Order: sequence, then C-alpha cells, then structure tokens
Amino acid sequence: MHVAPSTAVLSDRLDRARQSLVDSGTDVLLVSVGSDLPYLTGYEAMPLERLTMLVLPADGEATLVVPRLEAPRVITAEGLITVRPWDELEDPVAIVAGLVGRPRTAAVGDTMWARFLVDLLGRLPATRFTRSSTVMGPLRSRKDAAEIAALQAAGAAVDRIAGQLQRGEIPLIGRTEAEVSADLARRILAEGHERVNFAIVACAEHAASPHHEAGDRVIGADELVLCDFGGTMAGYCSDITRCVMTGEIPADIAEAYAALHAAEAAGVAAGVVGAACQDVDRAARRILDGAGWGQYFIHRTGHGIGMEAHEDPYMVEGNGEPIEAGNAFSVEPGVYLAGRWGLRLEDIVVATENGPLAMNSAEHSLVRVA
Amino acid sequence: MHVAPSTAVLSDRLDRARQSLVDSGTDVLLVSVGSDLPYLTGYEAMPLERLTMLVLPADGEATLVVPRLEAPRVITAEGLITVRPWDELEDPVAIVAGLVGRPRTAAVGDTMWARFLVDLLGRLPATRFTRSSTVMGPLRSRKDAAEIAALQAAGAAVDRIAGQLQRGEIPLIGRTEAEVSADLARRILAEGHERVNFAIVACAEHAASPHHEAGDRVIGADELVLCDFGGTMAGYCSDITRCVMTGEIPADIAEAYAALHAAEAAGVAAGVVGAACQDVDRAARRILDGAGWGQYFIHRTGHGIGMEAHEDPYMVEGNGEPIEAGNAFSVEPGVYLAGRWGLRLEDIVVATENGPLAMNSAEHSLVRVA
Repeated sequence: MHVAPSTAVLSDRLDRARQSLVDSGTDVLLVSVGSDLPYLTGYEAMPLERLTMLVLPADGEATLVVPRLEAPRVITAEGLITVRPWDELEDPVAIVAGLVGRPRTAAVGDTMWARFLVDLLGRLPATRFTRSSTVMGPLRSRKDAAEIAALQAAGAAVDRIAGQLQRGEIPLIGRTEAEVSADLARRILAEGHERVNFAIVACAEHAASPHHEAGDRVIGADELVLCDFGGTMAGYCSDITRCVMTGEIPADIAEAYAALHAAEAAGVAAGVVGAACQDVDRAARRILDGAGWGQYFIHRTGHGIGMEAHEDPYMVEGNGEPIEAGNAFSVEPGVYLAGRWGLRLEDIVVATENGPLAMNSAEHSLVRVA
Repeated sequence: MHVAPSTAVLSDRLDRARQSLVDSGTDVLLVSVGSDLPYLTGYEAMPLERLTMLVLPADGEATLVVPRLEAPRVITAEGLITVRPWDELEDPVAIVAGLVGRPRTAAVGDTMWARFLVDLLGRLPATRFTRSSTVMGPLRSRKDAAEIAALQAAGAAVDRIAGQLQRGEIPLIGRTEAEVSADLARRILAEGHERVNFAIVACAEHAASPHHEAGDRVIGADELVLCDFGGTMAGYCSDITRCVMTGEIPADIAEAYAALHAAEAAGVAAGVVGAACQDVDRAARRILDGAGWGQYFIHRTGHGIGMEAHEDPYMVEGNGEPIEAGNAFSVEPGVYLAGRWGLRLEDIVVATENGPLAMNSAEHSLVRVA
C-alpha cells in the first residue's frame, strides 16, 4: 500500500511544483489518475470514469476535485489542499474549468484518461495543453533519501527472487512460461510488493521478442530462459532481468553474454552525475558494437523508474539532458537473434554524488540451473 | 488471458465501427491502451510510454502502429489490419499524423493516456477531438452471445465466492479488512479470473463510504461487513456486492436492508429492452424514497460492464437512452449512514428480448455468519 508522505514533504513538493510551473511558463497543473497525484497529495485516484483532479495554479490555492462518494477516502495533509467533492449529477469538468479561469497554458497528467482532456478542450478552447511531465518530470526524477530507500527495498526483494531462480529453486523444465510467470508473480507479492507490474518469462527463441508475453510453451532442457519481472512496493517500483540456462551453455550464447555483461557494467558505470543520459546508452552500445553484437541490440538502454515502472529520464540516444543526483533508471542492454534466442541483463541504478549506486546485486553471470 | 475473437467477429466489428464513424460524422478512430483496441483487433497494448495505436479511417484501411520491440507480440487477423512497427528513434505520433491526413474530427480512446492526445493536438491543430465512446459505445454495449457467456462465467465465479462468504467459509471476526480483501483477491484468481479489479471490504461505519479502501480495522462480532469485489475473466468483468452480519442483525439495519432488497429487485426488473436507462435508477430510488431511506442513497444505480469494469450505459438520472438487447449493467442501490453503517446490494444484469437476465444468483438476503 502506498504510504503517504509527511505534510512537510508534501508542502515542499507543492512549492516546488508551483516554482516549476513558473519556470516552464505554465499557468496551471491538472493531474488525475497516475503518479503525479499521490506524489503531490498522498492520495491515489481510483482509475474509473468519475473524475478526480488536482488543480494547482502557479499562483493560487490547490484544490482536489473528487467524487463525493470517494471523498471519505481522501486523507491529505490539512491546510495544504482544499477538497471539493462533486455530486453524482454535477459536471466535474465544469467545476475544474471554473477553478482555472482562462489559463494560457495548462499541463495535464501524462497518464490521465484522454476523455477528460477531450472534455477540457471543449471548455477551454483558447488554452494550450502540455504534458505534466514537463512540469513534474524534473521534480519526480530527483529522488529524495526516502524514495531511494524505497527503491532499494523493492530492489532487494526482486534480488531475492532472482537468487531463487539462479539456485534452481524455481522449477523451469517441464513447466510452461505462463506457469513460471505466475510463480514469479506470487513471489513478487510474497516478498512484500503490493502489485505485480510484469513477469516476462521467455524461453529459447521467444527470448528474441523483448516484450514477449509468457505463453503455453513448455520449457525444455538445454534452453535459455529470460526472466524480466517487477512490481510496486510501498509505492515504488522494482525491475530486474536475469537469464539462466537449463543445461549446457552453447559457445555463441556464452560469447554474446560476455559482451552483454560488459556492456551492462559499462552502462552502469556511465551513470554519473553530470553525464548526459544518452552517454549511458552510448557506453553500453559501444561495447556491443565492438564485440560485433550491436546490430542485435534493438532498443534503448534504459528508462527512469520510481512511482511508475517507466518514467523520466530515458537513457536513449538524443537525450542530452544531464544526469542529476537522485535520478533512478534501468540499465538493460540486450542481444536478440530473431528465431533463435535473446539475452538481456538489467539492474536499477541511482546516480549519486558518490557515483552510481545499484539497487540490484543478484549474480550477473549467465547461470546454469540444470 | 484475453482470448482473441475469430477473424469473422473482428471483421464484423471493424465494419460496424466504420459505419459508426460515418453515422457520427467522425473521420477517423484512434485507439490505444484500453478495451477498444482488443475489441477491434484481439490485441492488447502494453500500458507503457511507447505508443501503440490503431488508426481506423471511416473510409480506409486499418493500421496498427506498434513499437518494433512489441511487434512480435501482435497476433491479429490476417488481411484485416496492416501492422506498422516503429523503430526506437522514430516519432510514432508523426507516423499516426501521416496516416490520418487532415481529419476534421477524430475520436480518441477514452482511456488512452492524455500525453498522446497532447502530442496529437500539436500535430493536428485543425482537428476536433471527441471521445471514442461516442463511436464505440453503441457497438460495445450490445454484447453478443459469446460476450454474454463470458459475463455469465465471470458472474458464476464471484457467486461461488459470495456463497463462501455467506456460509461463513471466509473468516471475518478477528481479521482486518485488508486481510479479508486479500483473501477475496486470492479467491477471485483461484476461480479463474486473470485479474482482480477490486475487493472492497468495509465493516461497520466504514461501509458508509461507498468506495472505502480496506484497511487495518479489525472486524469484530455483531458488525456489518460489506464486500464488493470483481475481476476480469477471459477478458470480461465480474462485479458483485453482498453484505453479511457477524452476529445479531439490529432492527434499523434489518429495516433498511428489506427496503434495499426490494429496491434492487425493482431495478433489475426495470432493466427491459426499450425502457430508458434512467428508469432503472428511478425504479430502485422510488422504493428507497417510499421507505424513507432515499436521502441515504447517494449514488447512481448502476454502470455498464463488459471488457471494462465500468463502461456504457450508465443507469443514472438524465440518461434517457433506451436500453437495448445485449446491454449489460450493474444494479446496485445502497443506503449509507455516515459514521454508522452502510449497505449495498449488487447484481449484473443483461437486457434480453425475453427480459432482464441476471448474471448473479448468490443469496440476496442479509445473512448472519456468526
């Protein structure tokens, strides 16, 4: 369950959000379903058709518009936010429009439902809408000590599961990918996560599909098994990838994995404060290019992580933004040979003034489990 | 796991969606994360920042824009839809804009992420955007025989859990609401759902909050316990509410429950083809008004249900749309006394040419379990 931050933390976040509105020339922030809302208020909206929306003007009072039948669920810091419940036959978008006036620019939650933006477009035809991440990304991507501790705890939890996988305590041969995926999901919850976000299990040629959906394929002997799994624990996400072999490791896989292992380590090492985000991508890619596997590395090296499984900053060519202290992100290069096999190795890393701090420490080599 | 409909079914749905675009004066449908996409293509988008979008023009070919690393997951009917994978450094919104040209009106998925609509606004400044539900609602709300069978199977599954609750097989006294909620969630999965959507457990005064979040409150003797739970099974949703008492039923609760029971039955009976949606609400409300409990019934009577837990049509005052054969919806009146107790009784109903067909048949009375 998400633990609400203290009033002092929320007050500070609201102040910084207002400053970020001013800095970005945005008149008002409008957030709903998604992580911006609990980040700023400690309250999570139900992902349903009744609108919950925080209205935060650059220079005015914060108001939380919420369905009356959910108002008793709202526990937010006294004095920071005014709660405005709406009745079943009221139009909540009209209430929001009344609160914002005629803003020139409004930032709307990246993951809020498009239907509410459609309704706002009708009410505020002269307003320019932007993504809330332009305002909130710079705040949310700099994790504070409590957030880093939450990421560490979530990382340690999935590390334990990776260890179980690598010690052969999670049966593979004779089970389907879907069965192993369900087993991983149970372990993610048993380790203290409140939610499973994904549990990719891909064997042999299926591992060449980076986002393979675990299916009916029965895992055999002498096969590669890629497991990429994570969840949300006390509001913060875990995400780890490890590969194991159910038998002898063929020479080509061993060779590719050695390059991948080095590429991942290089990506982690490049995650230093002041470097550009794309430098992490370049560091990993350079190793795979040099070893002749670069053409099989078909995705970016990493994504930010925090309250959402994927968020700013992205470790991708073209992102010249500097890495800042408190940035948390994945480093996950891969090698994918369509129709044959695929490999990926992933850790979560936090950039600190003392260098990159890994949230995962499960064994990094390709382990033989049978 | 969602089972993809046959090519014939998908072909028919795409044809009807095109006709609905023409009927509503909409040039193109753009759908992403949400249920419209699997309804039309059999494929479910990953709820992540890489855009997946079906582009369906009123008079042109359907194209599915999908991240290249997810393209191997796409299994959709041959010949109906062209798959357009985009590479990691391409801009998928530019690809979508190129496919649609300059539409006057575009309908966008209700539950797609607002960030993609923000991006589309920048690319298509002259386009008027509407909600996809204006196009897809009339299609999706008329369930076919296979969809009704899926709703029946999901309803029967939660009926079995309600029976366990009513027979005292789910321990209540001495456990927290959160523990009982987790128990219900496990049973929802064990009964064959692939996903738990909610498991509200609210005891005594907490039940007066319709969307109470199960917490640390320990359930005692002689207390009312409201359980409202459901999930998604083979792609279709269940949703049921039953209340039980852990002891003697006080006279005031017995009296209110008798009125509630009658109100729910009246709402179900009003769910006939050709009646207005608001007639279901009025029928339930009239009974509670007449018995003197109407002021404590603070929400609408029901919501449509199908691939989403809440969807069209809504059983609410002001909705004069006629009920059509195949409409599936909840009937769930409630009585809420703030600070004291709350009651709700809910079944899912499908309107048929032969009258309302209930998807739930678990005991409707207020059962004493201790």
